[in-house]
Amino acid sequence: MTPVDRSAGLLAVTMGDPTGIGPEIIAKAFARDAFRPCVVVGDVAVMRRAIRQCGLTLPVAQLGDPEDARALPPRCLGVWQPTALLPAGLADLTMGRVQAAAGRAAADCITAAAELALAGRVAAIVTAPIHKEALAAAGVSWPGHTEMLQALAADAGEAPPEVRMMLANDELAVVLVTIHVALRQAIDLITTERVLRTIQIAHRAASTQGQPAPRIAVAGLNPHAGENGLFGDEELTVIAPAIAAARAQGINASGPYAPDTVFMRARNTASHPGEFDLVIAMTHDHGLIPVKYLGVEQGVNVTLGLPFVRTSPDHGTAFDIAGSGLADPASLQAALRAARRLVANWPR
Amino acid sequence: MTPVDRSAGLLAVTMGDPTGIGPEIIAKAFARDAFRPCVVVGDVAVMRRAIRQCGLTLPVAQLGDPEDARALPPRCLGVWQPTALLPAGLADLTMGRVQAAAGRAAADCITAAAELALAGRVAAIVTAPIHKEALAAAGVSWPGHTEMLQALAADAGEAPPEVRMMLANDELAVVLVTIHVALRQAIDLITTERVLRTIQIAHRAASTQGQPAPRIAVAGLNPHAGENGLFGDEELTVIAPAIAAARAQGINASGPYAPDTVFMRARNTASHPGEFDLVIAMTHDHGLIPVKYLGVEQGVNVTLGLPFVRTSPDHGTAFDIAGSGLADPASLQAALRAARRLVANWPR
Repeated sequence: MTPVDRSAGLLAVTMGDPTGIGPEIIAKAFARDAFRPCVVVGDVAVMRRAIRQCGLTLPVAQLGDPEDARALPPRCLGVWQPTALLPAGLADLTMGRVQAAAGRAAADCITAAAELALAGRVAAIVTAPIHKEALAAAGVSWPGHTEMLQALAADAGEAPPEVRMMLANDELAVVLVTIHVALRQAIDLITTERVLRTIQIAHRAASTQGQPAPRIAVAGLNPHAGENGLFGDEELTVIAPAIAAARAQGINASGPYAPDTVFMRARNTASHPGEFDLVIAMTHDHGLIPVKYLGVEQGVNVTLGLPFVRTSPDHGTAFDIAGSGLADPASLQAALRAARRLVANWPR
Repeated sequence: MTPVDRSAGLLAVTMGDPTGIGPEIIAKAFARDAFRPCVVVGDVAVMRRAIRQCGLTLPVAQLGDPEDARALPPRCLGVWQPTALLPAGLADLTMGRVQAAAGRAAADCITAAAELALAGRVAAIVTAPIHKEALAAAGVSWPGHTEMLQALAADAGEAPPEVRMMLANDELAVVLVTIHVALRQAIDLITTERVLRTIQIAHRAASTQGQPAPRIAVAGLNPHAGENGLFGDEELTVIAPAIAAARAQGINASGPYAPDTVFMRARNTASHPGEFDLVIAMTHDHGLIPVKYLGVEQGVNVTLGLPFVRTSPDHGTAFDIAGSGLADPASLQAALRAARRLVANWPR
């Protein structure tokens, strides 16, 4: 494997489920703001259909090699079709339906993009939304991108990398200890080891983004962070020891804080400077409720801990409006900007 | 018991923990906007000290009977000392400390105010913040106002009324299925019966506030509302049947919705009309995180299901700033306005 030159900064964007809004938001994002150099890993006919659905005129170039994207003129959308992607009439699939062929194509694009990233041929992956049921219909069992990329990275390396999901918008950055599991099971997964690893992964990621000593707030699990064991003892027995261990390693972590106010305290706006740079949330919804509250179109999902940069919009395939040209590309644009920023600071 | 004439609309405000910010926010709220008729149930010397701490000049009248508040001139603060409240030098207590005498006094004021409300002598109670540990130090075991008022109402009636906590600000109203218990235990408490009762109590309360068919969104418990049983089955086995039962009774309830987006969808602003009038949240923090995210000073806590109206600010005693005169009365002012509005519409 050749040394990675991430400064070259080629971004790969996976098209997502071809019958969801992914191709449309990619087309709109590029029409608004040409991110270069950038290659769409997807199906050329699907991308052309999306451009028409959005009423845009945007030239499309089918690339023989992803890196040819560097040589494209501005505002020309470079699309590279992975060899695994069968010319299966993807652009003829009905929009907004769970279909095995769509799930298969979405998975093939993710796999191909991950292989490019692992080989150092692209600097980052930005993933458009996939549909879990379409993946399942295609025999792909991962509950989401995060788990799939983790497995692909593990295939390439010696041990599966421990990853965490970060959701961020202009005001708030949250890293999750647990994600796509039942709440009962999530509580069982919250161990001192896992909380400490999350703090460490978050600290390392934030440190690479120009925050040498990020102020990390660790939220509790229970109402009022348990009120000294009155409403649950996970704060005392699990979370506080992880914070102490992180602090002993020189990490500026504090808490556990009451979940209902810690996100408000971390919220950073011109009129309300945040008390913390990021918040560690114990559960999927403790963390995602505040990030999404002001509107999902603003949020970015960053997978921390992978051997490459990966961001995505924080919404789904929106099957109800797919094909209408109505989808808002703002979150994908934010994901592209975040990927660009992370690539510039990523440790080599 | 004489018939309740709630149109008379006398509000009782309990002073809260005398060493917390309660007395100060009461003084500031009255100096800014005289809510009349209104009586403070508390200690005269404590209220005088709070007025001084805030640098205000506000005349205080010690009332022989709570209803004498109706005859006070504008901007005169009427204080009624319950007979149980011992003249124990409350105004000499150190500010911002857990003290048994302070907890005892706070509890005595709540008890006296509840008795006034149950006797129909006041139309509503607005409660300033108490400190749980001070209550405990005084031998009072309730974890909060809600549970205490529920017990006091039960003493007066035949069965304990089933109550629910509603948190609301200008954008969002949330009613909680579970509150002050460990998250593990909260999950066990979420039954079809309990969710249905919450929907019914919320529907009845909203219906009295000029919303004849309130649109009630029911949040799920698990990430993505369980994705059809993939991440937990409480949505399928517990929550959906409660929604179906409520709909069979003519209630406009829907869901279960993914917790991470339902609050955003319900958020009601000039530029973003909410899809729902209120949201039923399964846990304390799913509901309170979004209500508090934009700043606690805006929120109001309403106890639904009691035989009288009760509201409160949605913050605590703030011992760290108590006595400094810095406390923000905005949430108490919102609670006073909400109580006034609820009293006007309350069924008699």
